[in-house]
Amino acid sequence: MTDAGGKQEIAIIGLGLMGGSMALALKKTGGYLITGYSPGAETRRAASKAGALDHMAGSAAEAVRNADISFFCAPPNAVIDEIRACAAFFKPGSVVSEVCGVKEEVFREITASLPAGVSYVGVHPMAGKERGGFANADENLYKNAGFILMYADDCPEESVRAIERLIRDLGSERVCRNTPAEHDRIIAYTSDLMHVASAALCRQYAAGMTLAHTAGAFRDCTRVADIDAGLWTELLLMNARHVAPVLGEYIRNLTDFKAALEHGYEGAVYGFLKTAGDNKRKINALKGVEQI
Amino acid sequence: MTDAGGKQEIAIIGLGLMGGSMALALKKTGGYLITGYSPGAETRRAASKAGALDHMAGSAAEAVRNADISFFCAPPNAVIDEIRACAAFFKPGSVVSEVCGVKEEVFREITASLPAGVSYVGVHPMAGKERGGFANADENLYKNAGFILMYADDCPEESVRAIERLIRDLGSERVCRNTPAEHDRIIAYTSDLMHVASAALCRQYAAGMTLAHTAGAFRDCTRVADIDAGLWTELLLMNARHVAPVLGEYIRNLTDFKAALEHGYEGAVYGFLKTAGDNKRKINALKGVEQI
Repeated sequence: MTDAGGKQEIAIIGLGLMGGSMALALKKTGGYLITGYSPGAETRRAASKAGALDHMAGSAAEAVRNADISFFCAPPNAVIDEIRACAAFFKPGSVVSEVCGVKEEVFREITASLPAGVSYVGVHPMAGKERGGFANADENLYKNAGFILMYADDCPEESVRAIERLIRDLGSERVCRNTPAEHDRIIAYTSDLMHVASAALCRQYAAGMTLAHTAGAFRDCTRVADIDAGLWTELLLMNARHVAPVLGEYIRNLTDFKAALEHGYEGAVYGFLKTAGDNKRKINALKGVEQI
Repeated sequence: MTDAGGKQEIAIIGLGLMGGSMALALKKTGGYLITGYSPGAETRRAASKAGALDHMAGSAAEAVRNADISFFCAPPNAVIDEIRACAAFFKPGSVVSEVCGVKEEVFREITASLPAGVSYVGVHPMAGKERGGFANADENLYKNAGFILMYADDCPEESVRAIERLIRDLGSERVCRNTPAEHDRIIAYTSDLMHVASAALCRQYAAGMTLAHTAGAFRDCTRVADIDAGLWTELLLMNARHVAPVLGEYIRNLTDFKAALEHGYEGAVYGFLKTAGDNKRKINALKGVEQI
């Protein structure tokens, strides 16, 4: 499971914001022998120059060949394709993981692709930035982030532990276990709806506005509207089954509020805002995160 | 216009987050003789104890009597009532101002209340916090905030300049002039819609969610959902004429997006997100703020 120097061998396929940040954080620990690969020549150059890796492989298959853990960091469809293409090359007994923000389809496709003896533990790190690419990679990106773990019932406990150790080395101990369906249903609210609501706030704007008309509310509510449209098109379409109902609920709530406002129903307007504030404070006080 | 020590006399009526922060910031400059009043005994005690004022008056009328500038810092209906009650006590040649987040009705009521020789310059400082009260007052609240100024055509230039000097002493040089109607139309988008959208995001939540399922998008999009329900009921109802149409546009955009998602229209989903991101970047690059 380790190289001559006693280090665990890890492959990171995709060296953008997520994979690049992972490489930088793990490299710093000194505990891993990191082989990387990215389909983009520019990205490979930037990652090599930054010293994020021990070895740059010439292909994904070459990168995973000796790895104890192979991490795929790309949008969902690319991850599915890459893992399928690497299926014959994973080391027996190794663990395959990925960081996609949507899981049901990814989980189904990956578990169907992998040969016996190679296990899969899906991870969704609750971390990101508006701008992707290795240029924005940051060794602190994952520090204290929540990590959702998903794995099949027959996944060896040892594989889950290997991923948990790696998460700890990324700087977090906040882990939550979900089934892929449970993950996708909850994320449809906690992440997908937030991105849709924020983007929609910038689908319109006010004629004549200046920055002097904006304050913290505008800045915060619209921050993630500066979105990676390609990545999020994929994530949202792949989770449409869960996003559409929570978005429908959001639209119904807004429609009720608009009616209360137009009719001057003070009690309804107040009640809506009061409940929202109470919920927000309840959510902030939520527990249920396992410390690993 | 000044006391024996050459200081301008200012009255601040209402010593919560907005008035308290103003008192703290102006006190620090040493250039003002500040008299304050707040209807709440607890607030008066806290403000006195913090040394935010030179004098605590026994009533609003007493506070404004010798003031060169009288600033009313309360929700709109209270501001209208207080200014009406003080109308006979303002010093001739003095300036009356307030910090309400909605202006058409406030402007109309105040200009109708004031005697000749007392001028009015309305201000909307684009600054705030989720929690109000003197306990949250902060001498840096107004630092670099945008200030919208509104005044009648016959308002003396000298009165506007006096308010601009005070804004500079609060730590900002970012000023924008609007008519009250223009202000309310633009603010309906840049502030009111943001608060409604954020509150509505917390009108619902996902069963089974934990904090590990949330990241920056959730934190930022829902920050202002921890809202002062009473204040915002008043602000939103008083600006319903402008809020309802922008909220209607928001609902229509979300409804279109939901349909695109449900039908799997990749081009429409991508186009929506792409336009939103482009707009967000355009807004961030907006100019049009006057430096005073």
